[in-house]
Amino acid sequence: MEGISVGLMGLGVVGGGVARVLADSRAAIAHQVGCPVNIKLVLVRSLDKAREYAVSSDLLTQDANDILLDDDISIVIEVMGGETPAEEYIRRAIRSGKHVVTANKEVMAKHGPELLAKAKENNVEILYEASVGGGIPLIGPFKQGLLANNISAIHAIINGTTNYILTKMASEGADLPVVLKEAQSLGYAEADPTNDVEGIDAAYKLAILSSLAFHTTVGPQDIYREGITKLTAKDFRYANELGYSIKLLAIAKADSGSIQVRVHPTFVPTDSILAKVDGVFNAVQVEGDLVGKVLFYGRGAGSLPTTSAVLADVIDLAQNIYRGIDHQPTAPMGFTKPITSVDEIRTRYYLRMSVADRPGVLGQIAQILGDSQISIASVIQKEADETAQSAEIVIMTHTAQEKAMRNALRVLNNLAAVVEIGNLIRVEDQHD
Amino acid sequence: MEGISVGLMGLGVVGGGVARVLADSRAAIAHQVGCPVNIKLVLVRSLDKAREYAVSSDLLTQDANDILLDDDISIVIEVMGGETPAEEYIRRAIRSGKHVVTANKEVMAKHGPELLAKAKENNVEILYEASVGGGIPLIGPFKQGLLANNISAIHAIINGTTNYILTKMASEGADLPVVLKEAQSLGYAEADPTNDVEGIDAAYKLAILSSLAFHTTVGPQDIYREGITKLTAKDFRYANELGYSIKLLAIAKADSGSIQVRVHPTFVPTDSILAKVDGVFNAVQVEGDLVGKVLFYGRGAGSLPTTSAVLADVIDLAQNIYRGIDHQPTAPMGFTKPITSVDEIRTRYYLRMSVADRPGVLGQIAQILGDSQISIASVIQKEADETAQSAEIVIMTHTAQEKAMRNALRVLNNLAAVVEIGNLIRVEDQHD
Repeated sequence: MEGISVGLMGLGVVGGGVARVLADSRAAIAHQVGCPVNIKLVLVRSLDKAREYAVSSDLLTQDANDILLDDDISIVIEVMGGETPAEEYIRRAIRSGKHVVTANKEVMAKHGPELLAKAKENNVEILYEASVGGGIPLIGPFKQGLLANNISAIHAIINGTTNYILTKMASEGADLPVVLKEAQSLGYAEADPTNDVEGIDAAYKLAILSSLAFHTTVGPQDIYREGITKLTAKDFRYANELGYSIKLLAIAKADSGSIQVRVHPTFVPTDSILAKVDGVFNAVQVEGDLVGKVLFYGRGAGSLPTTSAVLADVIDLAQNIYRGIDHQPTAPMGFTKPITSVDEIRTRYYLRMSVADRPGVLGQIAQILGDSQISIASVIQKEADETAQSAEIVIMTHTAQEKAMRNALRVLNNLAAVVEIGNLIRVEDQHD
Repeated sequence: MEGISVGLMGLGVVGGGVARVLADSRAAIAHQVGCPVNIKLVLVRSLDKAREYAVSSDLLTQDANDILLDDDISIVIEVMGGETPAEEYIRRAIRSGKHVVTANKEVMAKHGPELLAKAKENNVEILYEASVGGGIPLIGPFKQGLLANNISAIHAIINGTTNYILTKMASEGADLPVVLKEAQSLGYAEADPTNDVEGIDAAYKLAILSSLAFHTTVGPQDIYREGITKLTAKDFRYANELGYSIKLLAIAKADSGSIQVRVHPTFVPTDSILAKVDGVFNAVQVEGDLVGKVLFYGRGAGSLPTTSAVLADVIDLAQNIYRGIDHQPTAPMGFTKPITSVDEIRTRYYLRMSVADRPGVLGQIAQILGDSQISIASVIQKEADETAQSAEIVIMTHTAQEKAMRNALRVLNNLAAVVEIGNLIRVEDQHD
């Protein structure tokens, strides 16, 4: 075979990495596949933009049809990002009988199960290892190494930007705006950080992982989501005092027939391995009935880590094409498991509030929580503000139902003695 | 298809788990494969031994030929352990055109590359995910997710028994014999702990991982190996003071054309993720040119974690058999890279010795080290023993060559002022 032709869609940070490594590692990849893998065409928005990695101008095109209608191209690598027009191109590639490798978490989160079913109909594969966790092998283990397990839970730190910010807030005692500015200047956060700090990016990735792990269809809209914007330096101080770290966790749990899927700031015990995942690193902890807890850790973003995952998928497909193996892709199982409403989840809570500094207030609060069947595990009261005559109370609860906690918060909010509900953070007592 | 027949060799801790889960998860596995996977025969040493998981006596046989000569059996699961007769059975299974799934680290470490080549000749596969790291997906990622990388290093904690012992020594300040006895009573260490405490088990696993990672043939005899028996409570105290933890690391590094492979107690920075791998847990950190550092973490042994890996391999093979995909297993690349002699490695060292408590001794020692081109990074001197008139000196060196260090140790040993060389431990400044 002379070689396998691929069409590359996108020549940004990731596309440039893919093009460069395909060229630099040409011989090694040919050795692994059995024949060379050649980029035939690259879809770009602008033909004359200066790029970090320059691709021969003969290969560049602004017309997606050049790739989608080229029968010689058997694999389309989609690294444009964003939902539109990437989703349409992936759909058309599949219809034309081309395999697809994509790093697109938004498309896979919103349309993955449907696209996988379409791919199966057309006897082609969509591989998407790069869509979650950069170069950390995650999709592969779910599809193979962990396949014999019933997965009971995923606890994941899958957004490097927010983990960098939370790590800095913890170590420097700084508030979010200061750290965010620093992260932006280092290129770890975007000018518009909404997708990261609001947990949207993490929710996309959780949708992908939980669909795989639980053999069902989870979309971003199914995921309860809170970002990191309400966290203050105070929360980190109290967390530390209580033996916890604060992480933005993406959590999925099997819940007797239904599944819980949520992204929110979470207290995790300081001595747990998740608490030790610092900076821009990602970690995905998976719990299975056979394997127990396993954890996958590494850089979750960046040009080369993402290229590592994209090329692993390309090599996988190219090996099969070279060997003439007929693709019989597995579609998702098609089960649709119900999603547990966030009202129904049961967890422990950290509750910080500012209250009037006078006798009997703690008793009133305990009474209100008790009325909602929420029992208190521990209380910290300090930092009385003499001038304002207010005190700060931090309560750790035992396991309670979210609905009950929300009811209690409403009542507390109307209590004269409560100046302000500072923050409510869920706790995962994940011991390794 | 009515079903795929497998022959199970061994019904011990792992074999029992495999038999039980194959039965309990029959429907789920059939769904994943497309048809049922049935145990047709189980090779056991004794037909009437009491077992934790009882298999119908109709399935039991004491004659390996019953499995090896049965044309209906397409997959042999070898979970007997030990080199003999497992290796012969695997060899015969391959010759009979049967696929093999094995958890046997000793056989794969000593004969893996040759067996893989034989399997390729016979157009069958040997899968061995369970041979390293229990249920942690490791072999899979090397064969797929990390395939586009040039691997530069592996740093692994791959023996749970020794990691449990070292964790206890660190937390309790106890010496090895005490902790070993405790580990034995908990079932974490065997009555004869040699394979674990001498690093033999870790060396088997490193041989397997490094052969895969560096596309070459590494056997146990190629691996420089030191066990944990020389470590004392003192070493843990000093390590802690210097900001390090002590772990039995299995290390493989690409070394301009050759590779380093070694297993020995190692100082790792306390804030590194490897230092945080405690108790019976395993972790394998892999460094690649694209992916950077990734780490795989979980329980490295036990019936169910190992069963998880065995069944993943069985399902993988069974899916291909069901789909009629012709197996074209990849043999190892056949490159044979030279192994760097331990004399040639360059690393930092921790050196603890007991010396005469009199002026000028430290100067003499520094002189001897300097003569061997070893420069000192820091010194701790304390714990003078008044009666013995000796003092303990702990030296952290800058990077030096092993050969030079060994020369210096010989000279130091002959120095009148040196009472005893306490320990020499290599340092890996692995920051994440």
